[in-house]
Formats: sequence, C-alpha cells, structure tokens
Amino acid sequence: MAVYTDVADDELKAFVGEYDIGEVLACKGIAEGVENSNFLLTTEHGNFILTLYEKRVALADLPFFIALMEHLARLGVACPTPLRGRDGVALRRLCARPAAIVTFLPGMWPRRILPFHCAALGRVLALLHCAGASFALSRENDLSLSGWKSLLLSCRERAGEVAPGLSGELEKELLALEAAWPKDLPKGVIHGDLFPDNVFFHGREVSGLIDFYFACTDFLAYDLSVCLNAWCFEEDGSLNVTKARLFIEGYRGVRPLLREELEALPTLARGSAFRFLLTRLFDWLQGSQGALVRLKDPLEFLQRLRFHRSARGPSAYGVEP
Amino acid sequence: MAVYTDVADDELKAFVGEYDIGEVLACKGIAEGVENSNFLLTTEHGNFILTLYEKRVALADLPFFIALMEHLARLGVACPTPLRGRDGVALRRLCARPAAIVTFLPGMWPRRILPFHCAALGRVLALLHCAGASFALSRENDLSLSGWKSLLLSCRERAGEVAPGLSGELEKELLALEAAWPKDLPKGVIHGDLFPDNVFFHGREVSGLIDFYFACTDFLAYDLSVCLNAWCFEEDGSLNVTKARLFIEGYRGVRPLLREELEALPTLARGSAFRFLLTRLFDWLQGSQGALVRLKDPLEFLQRLRFHRSARGPSAYGVEP
Repeated sequence: MAVYTDVADDELKAFVGEYDIGEVLACKGIAEGVENSNFLLTTEHGNFILTLYEKRVALADLPFFIALMEHLARLGVACPTPLRGRDGVALRRLCARPAAIVTFLPGMWPRRILPFHCAALGRVLALLHCAGASFALSRENDLSLSGWKSLLLSCRERAGEVAPGLSGELEKELLALEAAWPKDLPKGVIHGDLFPDNVFFHGREVSGLIDFYFACTDFLAYDLSVCLNAWCFEEDGSLNVTKARLFIEGYRGVRPLLREELEALPTLARGSAFRFLLTRLFDWLQGSQGALVRLKDPLEFLQRLRFHRSARGPSAYGVEP
Repeated sequence: MAVYTDVADDELKAFVGEYDIGEVLACKGIAEGVENSNFLLTTEHGNFILTLYEKRVALADLPFFIALMEHLARLGVACPTPLRGRDGVALRRLCARPAAIVTFLPGMWPRRILPFHCAALGRVLALLHCAGASFALSRENDLSLSGWKSLLLSCRERAGEVAPGLSGELEKELLALEAAWPKDLPKGVIHGDLFPDNVFFHGREVSGLIDFYFACTDFLAYDLSVCLNAWCFEEDGSLNVTKARLFIEGYRGVRPLLREELEALPTLARGSAFRFLLTRLFDWLQGSQGALVRLKDPLEFLQRLRFHRSARGPSAYGVEP
C-alpha cells in the first residue's frame, strides 16, 4: 500500500491534457503497489491507473518496464498497457517524478488462495514466459546472487534484532546458494514478484497481472520458485502440496518444463525465499520511513527457506520430472 | 488515508449481490477518509464507494449519517447518496463491520487553496445549511465543550511532549471558551469537518461534499468557523483575509448571517481551532496504532487559536456585520 506523492489538481489536469482520454473527473490514491505512488484516475473515457515512480525504481529501468508491458499486452497477456500521449510518449514527468498512465484492469486479487487459483496462475505464468520470448530488451536481475550479497552486508549487523542467530544462518545460506546455483537453464523475461496482490482474478480465471517493476531476464524456472513461495504455503508455514502440484502442472500444460528445471526447483526456491527474506529484512530494519506501507514479516520466508533446504527434489512439490 | 480492513473477494461478491448494481469488476482500497476503510468499487454499473465503518464511528450514529446524506442528496446538495439493497436497506454488514455503498462523486479536492475555492465553499456551505433545515433527525455535537473537556483530561499529562507549557495554555483556553461560548445562535445540521479533502471541485465549482461522519446539530456559524480554520490560513500560519472575506461573503450571498453570528465568529473559531488541536493531539499521543494514517501536526491549530484569541470582531476576517 503506497501513496508517497500527492498530486495537485492543476498539475494533474495539465498532465492528462497530453493524452486523448478526455477530462479528469477524479483521481484517488490507492492502496496498491509498494514501490510507487498509484492513483485511480477517472476521466471522461473511464478508469485508468496513474503511477508516479518513486526513487526505489531506477529511472534507467523504466523504458524496459514500459516496453515490456506494451509488448505483453500486444501479445494478449492481460497486463496494464501504457498509454501514449499525443506526442507518442508513454513515460512523462509529473510532480518531479517519472510518471505513466496505464489501462485499468478489472478483477480483484485473491485474499484467500484456493487450489484453482494456483492452477490458473501456472497457466498464465507460462503464457507470460512464452510471450516474453519475442521481447527484444533485456535487464539483469539485480536481486539475484550479487544483489543478495550486498543486501546481506547492509543487514548483517542488525539481523539479530529480528531473530537471534539470523545473521549466521543467512551467511551460510548465501554460501550454499552460490555453490549450488544453476548455471544453465532456459532464460527469458520473468515477472520476478508475482505475489497474490499482483494477480487479479475475475471468477476462476486470471484477469490481469500487474506490477512489472521487478521484471528482468533470468531463469524462467526461478519465476516458478517465486510463485511457490508466494502462493503455495499455508499460514502455519507448511507447503500445500496440492497447490504446488496444480500450479506446476498448470504451467507445464502450456510450456513444458525440462528435467533440469524441475530438479533445480528446490535450489531456486531456496534462492527466492532468501531474496524475499532479505528485502523484507532490509525494509524492516529501515523502518517505514514515513511511507504508508504496512511492513511485512521477514521471518515467514525463513521458514519457507528451511523447507526448501530440506527438499530432495521436485517430488517435494508434488511433481515428477 | 485509511484502509483498516481488507475485504475478501467472495465476501464482497455476496455483499454486492444484495444490490442491483451488476457484478463486481474491481475493488481498491483508497486513500480517503481517516475514520473508516474506503474502497473504490467498480461494478458493471460504474464506480461506487464502499465504506466499512470502523470502531471510531459509533454504531448508534450511523442511521443519522445515512439519513442525512439521503436527505441532502434528495435536495440537490452534491454528496454521496447511500444505495439501498433490493430489501430497501442501505446500512448492512461486511467483514463484521457496518458497511454501506454510496455513489461515486466526480471531482478532486484542491491541494492548493485559491481564493475562488473559498468563495465557492461559502456558497455550498450555506446551501447545505438551508437544505439541513428540513431534516428531521438531530444529533448532539459530541466534539463541543463537554467533549473537549474529556479529551483535554486524557491528553493533559502528556501534552508537554508536543510543546512545553501546552497543557497549561489549553486548560486556560477551555475555561475562557466555557465562559464566552454563545448560547443563542441559529442552530441546524452542520458538517463539522469541512476540510479541503472533504470538498471536491470540478473546475471552479464544488462538485461534491463527502465525509459526513462528524455531522451534528449545532450553531450554523460554528461550521463557518471550522472552514475559516481549515481553508483560510496560509502555510506560514497567517490568515489570508481575502480568502476569509470571499468565503463569508459567498455564504452570505445564499444565507444571510445575523449580526450575532458574525460577532461570535472569533469565539467560535477559537473553539473549532481548539477542537482540531485536541483531536490531533490525542491522535498524536496515541500513535498511529498500525493504521495507514499520516498523523497531522496538532500545533498548526495552536497558532490559529492564538490568532482568533486576538481577533476583536468579524473585521479580523475581512467582513463587517
């Protein structure tokens, strides 16, 4: 949930005047997205989302994100489509920040994950990966091994405030991940942050994917491991094997997985649990810094990480190569 | 800004099913209102606002607020109109809270107050007071003298944390207000909290008033004093006499003010500055309690209170009886 910047009405009017979407009728800050300020903008032409990119998103990366959303939307993946102004430009400035208007996607993200959500998620993730194959740009995953190393360095000293012994466990984990990390798996565009609040459903089907601001080029199977962590664990910390199996089988029904990808799942899932543990830990230790963001508990992911560490192969997730 | 409660998609679907507004397309928590959880609900019929009443709003008062909005909307005052379900009921329950769906009002609240805003505000406030004259229900202002007394009692000990000597100044102020408070001015329905974020504009005209959850029966001129405090001071703490004059003259153009009402303005404005100082102080000392609310500085109103204390009559606000 985030609204970092307040937009004055006259500035907004001038900004929206660059587009062919009629006059502004209303604009309300919404509780969606954590990195940026998001507004539900209503004009004479309907609802849109206005995003102001705050400093956590690197300016240099924005053209990648905008082009990716345009590319995916063109290929029929339900995701926000950036609007272009009359001058053909999609990425402009508002309130001294980069800003864009994108289409409004209907649907709600599921608050209670049921097995059918996981199956539908698997199918749409595979479609996203297939559509990404023809995308020309690439962007390194700055939240993979080297990024984790610097995050850990900045959190190490105070990690013990969150759980005793955490710092030592994380250091050992990073060494293990560096040693075991796969080198040669199919790569492509991944979403990188496909948590339930980034996936809208209408009835039993996915109606849209949002928040592409961690998208990058990495192992496609890593994206599956993110979803396993984000969708398939219960509140008591245990993996729901039915959800995991339905998710992976849903994916395989659209894009087959290689034996190597399946066998790498425990390591990749350790890695993605480690990544979310680290970024949450970092945010936790930083405090909320005045933004209207509800901080998330880093330790949820420690439990998941330990699960994946003990997993002997894809059968831990209910699937066989 | 507030979203205290998260609504699950299946519960929402069942709730909206009680109304004739088509199927839910989307529902997003919005940064509007401080006391309740507010959502922008999009259905097949368009945009609506869904409000979940949190514990700060007394259940017993809700029928008054709902009936008032219905009454005002019927008389043409642009305010949210509560929707009735197929059973004729407007106030229902969702997520174990009282909840209502109201119409969506176009417009944006002004971030930068210009003189024309104040003139338009005066006119619409007078229309609200005139329309309120035929409203049958009444509700005591629980944030007047007796309410201030109990608020001050609960804050007194820690008021010094916010400003040295604050506690003594507030106690003296309350005694002075009790002695000077008017007894016999025209009464009726007042909004009670008409700050800029509760007034939407479209162009130069008011397009809607929202957030009637402090509405009550009190001196009509007290509502003017709230607006003087909320709209007519500059960031440096000085009164903008042009804005004050335009506001009061805008009001008088629709509903004439008695000499007694004008003469009471400095006292009433001391009172309303005191009221907002106290509630902000209370919130400040309580801390945010986990809600996604940006706390407001109580001391802004200490400065305004001191201004009104030194005002000798309505001429301090640029008007003559």
